Amino acid sequence: MNEFSLIKTYFNSIRHQRVDVIFGIGDDAACLHVPNDMDLLVSTDTLVAGVHFLSDWDPYAIASRALLVNISDMAAMAAEPCWVTLALTLPTFDESWLKRFSAGLSDTLQAYNIALVGGDTTRGPLSITLTIHGVCPKGQAIRRSGAKVGDTVYVSGLLGASALAVSFLDDKTLDEDSRRVLMDNLLFPKPRVDLKHYLRQHATAAIDVSDGLSADLNHILESSHVGACIDLEKIPVHPLVLAYKKENAIEFALNGGDDYELCFTMSNEHEPIGLGCYPIGRITEEGGLHAKTLIGDSVPIQARGYCHF
Amino acid sequence: MNEFSLIKTYFNSIRHQRVDVIFGIGDDAACLHVPNDMDLLVSTDTLVAGVHFLSDWDPYAIASRALLVNISDMAAMAAEPCWVTLALTLPTFDESWLKRFSAGLSDTLQAYNIALVGGDTTRGPLSITLTIHGVCPKGQAIRRSGAKVGDTVYVSGLLGASALAVSFLDDKTLDEDSRRVLMDNLLFPKPRVDLKHYLRQHATAAIDVSDGLSADLNHILESSHVGACIDLEKIPVHPLVLAYKKENAIEFALNGGDDYELCFTMSNEHEPIGLGCYPIGRITEEGGLHAKTLIGDSVPIQARGYCHF
Repeated sequence: MNEFSLIKTYFNSIRHQRVDVIFGIGDDAACLHVPNDMDLLVSTDTLVAGVHFLSDWDPYAIASRALLVNISDMAAMAAEPCWVTLALTLPTFDESWLKRFSAGLSDTLQAYNIALVGGDTTRGPLSITLTIHGVCPKGQAIRRSGAKVGDTVYVSGLLGASALAVSFLDDKTLDEDSRRVLMDNLLFPKPRVDLKHYLRQHATAAIDVSDGLSADLNHILESSHVGACIDLEKIPVHPLVLAYKKENAIEFALNGGDDYELCFTMSNEHEPIGLGCYPIGRITEEGGLHAKTLIGDSVPIQARGYCHF
Repeated sequence: MNEFSLIKTYFNSIRHQRVDVIFGIGDDAACLHVPNDMDLLVSTDTLVAGVHFLSDWDPYAIASRALLVNISDMAAMAAEPCWVTLALTLPTFDESWLKRFSAGLSDTLQAYNIALVGGDTTRGPLSITLTIHGVCPKGQAIRRSGAKVGDTVYVSGLLGASALAVSFLDDKTLDEDSRRVLMDNLLFPKPRVDLKHYLRQHATAAIDVSDGLSADLNHILESSHVGACIDLEKIPVHPLVLAYKKENAIEFALNGGDDYELCFTMSNEHEPIGLGCYPIGRITEEGGLHAKTLIGDSVPIQARGYCHF
């Protein structure tokens, strides 16, 4: 079975389609319809074996996670994800691996109503590059650069569990229930596309927490030319982080990546009620990231995220 | 210098922009404007070191070629290339390598009026995935599936030189002038975007010759549910192939990849005059690819292209 039949068998069988796909896989390019009143949003992410995931993970999870991480970029822009292309580099042709991988891809595409519209399969060290495309009403995409002095800083959910999962990967003493919760958090993050309407209406800036809260919030601060003072006590730490690493809980929540919640800013007139979002601090005129101490003054926080080099 | 400053320094400095880029690099996604009367075309291609190029090639050429190969997919659809995202995986941080790579990327983007709108840089074995986006007037993109019985089969230029270049990579006896021409052909292919208006008006099917004429024409035949009979004498073989490999010239032109000319089909009422295109045969009702022999009957040709597995 050669490259062409390989692609045909596994990826052409992914059936989830959308009416805005004029034609997808099978030509030199896919042809897509972007509605007149919409902007097109495009983002690309690579996941390399040994860096972003382990080769021995279930291929179902590898595919799902790769796609979920890309969907999160659309969520961060308040866009609706629509189409994705897959560039898959494989060391060998392994039919059972491909079967599981395409099942994970297919289920996640269907769950988020996204069509796979193109791909390229090459031989080489295992890596996955997805390019995701979404749409957003003209001018309503949320950028990193819009945070204003006085805005409240929010995070959309619990932080730290994925970093904790990574720290426990080789630790066999962890109890099974906790491991399941943590690995689910790491392998199947839940991109917050559900917040898109709310963000479009009210958010001044947004980003997804992929590298860690301090690093990602810092991107907002730099793009917006502002600072922030956050209240460490208000960071929503995942309960398992408190259970297993109480002494490093803030470290996990502040600098641990891979949670794929959103961090966003909003004027005080609006409060996200019933959306499970947590106010953690305020945008300041003074640059940089600071933490409020118990006695009221503030100390600088070093933004530390995952660094590839 | 960490990942973020690395990306900033080299890729944010690529200045070529387009008015249809609402915003590009620096957010979780780029925001783009697709005109109302246009379809969006998307294609993705991965180039892996050791498979599609050699690690010791000039990074300027590696970047240029990666982009040119992607532009060729737009040319094959008769689309205008507009935007590209780059996913670059690098084994180490090598500043002089990155400098040359981004220079090659920048020059090629400018030459074809394409904006770099996003990217991801990761650590791992050297590989490049580009996702290119183009536009085409609604309904005018040329597919592989439209070839009709009786149509003439054309190729847009000389074939075989890139395969010859690959066969001479380690051969030091080749004279310098010939080597320069061949390596130019391999490293800096010329995607035929110049044919887009003509193809939109007249072509019934098109593909770019990336894997080899026989394999790529075969994709058209399978998608269109037709066959073709080609006249081997009429295949435009590159003169250096005739000079160096006269006995295998047809083999090079028929099965050698990487030339990035177009193969297209057109009704006989139209003839591409003055465009440097060569008629090489005819679409037949009988399936498969055949060659006309000197005595008038036809023999089947095995479609053989580059196979990754």
